[in-house]
Amino acid sequence: MRAIDIIMKKRGTTIRDKNGEKTLAGSTKLTGEEIRFLIDSYVSGALPDYQMSAFLMAVYFNGMDFEETGALTDAMLHSGDVINLHGDGAIEGLDGEVFVDKHSTGGVGDKISLPLAPIVASCGVKDPMMSGRALGHTGGTLDKLESIEGKDSGRFNVFLSEEEFKAGIRKDGFAMMGQTPKIVPADKKMYALRDVTATVESVPLITASILSKKVAEGADALVFDVKYGTGAFMKTKKDAEELAVSLVNTAKAMEKKASALITNMNTPLGRTVGNFLEIEETVECLRGNGPADVMELTYQLGAEMILLAGKAKTRDEAIEMEKDAVSSGRALERFLANVRTQGGDADKLMAQIGTRRSPFRAEVRAKEDGFLSLDAFKTGLAGVYLGVGRNKATDDVCFDAGIVMHKKTGAEVRKGELILEVYGKDAECLAPAVALLESEAISYSPEKPEEDELVFKIIQ
Amino acid sequence: MRAIDIIMKKRGTTIRDKNGEKTLAGSTKLTGEEIRFLIDSYVSGALPDYQMSAFLMAVYFNGMDFEETGALTDAMLHSGDVINLHGDGAIEGLDGEVFVDKHSTGGVGDKISLPLAPIVASCGVKDPMMSGRALGHTGGTLDKLESIEGKDSGRFNVFLSEEEFKAGIRKDGFAMMGQTPKIVPADKKMYALRDVTATVESVPLITASILSKKVAEGADALVFDVKYGTGAFMKTKKDAEELAVSLVNTAKAMEKKASALITNMNTPLGRTVGNFLEIEETVECLRGNGPADVMELTYQLGAEMILLAGKAKTRDEAIEMEKDAVSSGRALERFLANVRTQGGDADKLMAQIGTRRSPFRAEVRAKEDGFLSLDAFKTGLAGVYLGVGRNKATDDVCFDAGIVMHKKTGAEVRKGELILEVYGKDAECLAPAVALLESEAISYSPEKPEEDELVFKIIQ
Repeated sequence: MRAIDIIMKKRGTTIRDKNGEKTLAGSTKLTGEEIRFLIDSYVSGALPDYQMSAFLMAVYFNGMDFEETGALTDAMLHSGDVINLHGDGAIEGLDGEVFVDKHSTGGVGDKISLPLAPIVASCGVKDPMMSGRALGHTGGTLDKLESIEGKDSGRFNVFLSEEEFKAGIRKDGFAMMGQTPKIVPADKKMYALRDVTATVESVPLITASILSKKVAEGADALVFDVKYGTGAFMKTKKDAEELAVSLVNTAKAMEKKASALITNMNTPLGRTVGNFLEIEETVECLRGNGPADVMELTYQLGAEMILLAGKAKTRDEAIEMEKDAVSSGRALERFLANVRTQGGDADKLMAQIGTRRSPFRAEVRAKEDGFLSLDAFKTGLAGVYLGVGRNKATDDVCFDAGIVMHKKTGAEVRKGELILEVYGKDAECLAPAVALLESEAISYSPEKPEEDELVFKIIQ
Repeated sequence: MRAIDIIMKKRGTTIRDKNGEKTLAGSTKLTGEEIRFLIDSYVSGALPDYQMSAFLMAVYFNGMDFEETGALTDAMLHSGDVINLHGDGAIEGLDGEVFVDKHSTGGVGDKISLPLAPIVASCGVKDPMMSGRALGHTGGTLDKLESIEGKDSGRFNVFLSEEEFKAGIRKDGFAMMGQTPKIVPADKKMYALRDVTATVESVPLITASILSKKVAEGADALVFDVKYGTGAFMKTKKDAEELAVSLVNTAKAMEKKASALITNMNTPLGRTVGNFLEIEETVECLRGNGPADVMELTYQLGAEMILLAGKAKTRDEAIEMEKDAVSSGRALERFLANVRTQGGDADKLMAQIGTRRSPFRAEVRAKEDGFLSLDAFKTGLAGVYLGVGRNKATDDVCFDAGIVMHKKTGAEVRKGELILEVYGKDAECLAPAVALLESEAISYSPEKPEEDELVFKIIQ
């Protein structure tokens, strides 16, 4: 087997019909063996970057079907550690479970994982949750969790061993951790190459990148929150739908259960953008005081998880179970139990609700009368200025920085009314963040803007 | 300027229309500055192979127009030495000349350069001819020239300095040399990369590779012999025409004069395939005894050269001039003068005509009655077995090996009649070469096969 032949097969060849007219023949479908050969050789160093980048560009143009994408995902996930939650790797008493996780393509104010995990765990779902960090305008669940303080100078620990991860799932129904460095090394190497060779924007490559990490963490079933809009990776509904269909069908080609929601990320989710601010909002959600958009999305995604796990028969039944988990207080208890399990101080956390803020504060008030629009991407960027997120992976984040949204898209405001409270990592960052919010994130219109529904479509 | 942006520009982006339908937007045309930046960075080592290969694959899919291809050619040719035949670099008395060269895309039995250069030089054309070596099934002019022996153990010298090259053109009207190692290093580096990344078969990339070397050697005008057929790089007339149009229009975009002939390479040209055998055939051509196909192609290509050089007003006039150069003996004199200039022994050469043969000889006789077809590609491969050509650039060739074709495609033969004489580098190579010729190169049909015309089209 030679890499050049596989690249050529994916590239396709020019053919001429009997009139001599030229067309680019569709590339031939690659076999699983060919895809495995490419990925294994690349990870081992036998296949040089220049052949992989030519291959990736050919995939950009000619795509891959779900079976090929599944084979690519499978080859990538086996390049590193794979957590096995069944058979040899089973958690005592849980071998028969369908482990379900949720993955979001990333957004602004998207704290859904935080209330979701304890709610579905309260409904019997077992969730091996692996999350990421803030990067660019999007937030990261791990940074939010780390804003929870522990005893003394400790804090919530997202660096779990496999044993701790499994023990957490057994005890609390879920555990929260980051990817270990040994999970899917192929993706790290390929992503770094795609980033400098203009081969990022390819649905099968994006699919394999996302899916390989989720399958490697041990999930049997996956619910995807594929976002569209200014604050999302996919800007249009159609692009998001294409990715959602690819994720679900590729997961199925790999014999995993899957579904996806296509959801609106034109404006931030909920009432806060930040780290500890979003933990506060999570507690409010679990107390039954969550904002409507966060609760709706949490319940909808949770219903998918409950259905895939086989813990309810209908969507309505699943949503009733979730509402009961919140109103009974069981979900909040479950959340606090996980905080304790992973080294956080639940009492300190609850005492800090509503009181823990950065001392560097500014306000954004309405410049005119009208109906408000708040742009997700620009708000996320203002968050980076404030210290919520990071420009590059090695930057630090500020746990107490963030934005409290008193008014959201669609609200009618009067000139001078408080729209946003802004908390910065220092005094200097406030002015540029406020200027960005005032001039680019916020706009006013005389008519109430038409808003897209929060959940556009469910792909099953 | 960033390489990633240039790759992305050539790659193009996916766009959606108002109905959400997805199309791959045509890539945007690159500027000369962007192309120069890529090539200069690549040659200097600043641009890594993996970015260049992604760029080349994007060019494979999205192509380049003639202006872009011209800019690519220009950037490539300036990566190394460029011979200047005007102004500062002018040859005494020849500053006003239009220097014309011919380039063939390679074939079997294609010795056209050898009679062509002295014929057009006899008609006043100045030809700075740079040629290549045999590789794979195709022969090489340099190997043929080196089969001409000199005094003692010397031979025809194709390694000329720029001064010797220019002196030869001044004295004989033409000089014959190989590319110096410093001509177009960008092409060597890019070709090696294309070869392992499935990006060879791209018309603009092939165009820039050919044209950069021809322009670097100092030609003001170029005549291309673009071959199609089993023995050619381009298998179909349409593919050959696409390349011919690209070569001519790109040359024009670079303000060079150019034309191209699209010619048949389904069967070998002339009566011989070999090294010294083709020198013999050249002498026969210049004595007026050349085979019809070689003479026709030589006169047609020569007429284009004479017209581009401004030495005749019409094609008919040019062809008459060429015929007169042969019948008067001036062309043969000019050929022998060049042999002497470049270190060959003209007397020894003439004495060897018809007598110098490898001692390892075999015959191929007709296996049945019928009309013969002789396939160019398979005959060329048999030539490699015999030692005429080489499989890889470092192989040696045998000057006295080759094939003499007593019958050619279209001839009616009787079982047992002599078709080919075969001369090998050693005794062992004869049997496999004969087997290949008998089983794959030669075929018989009851009806006279329809033959394509030798010159399919002229592109101006």
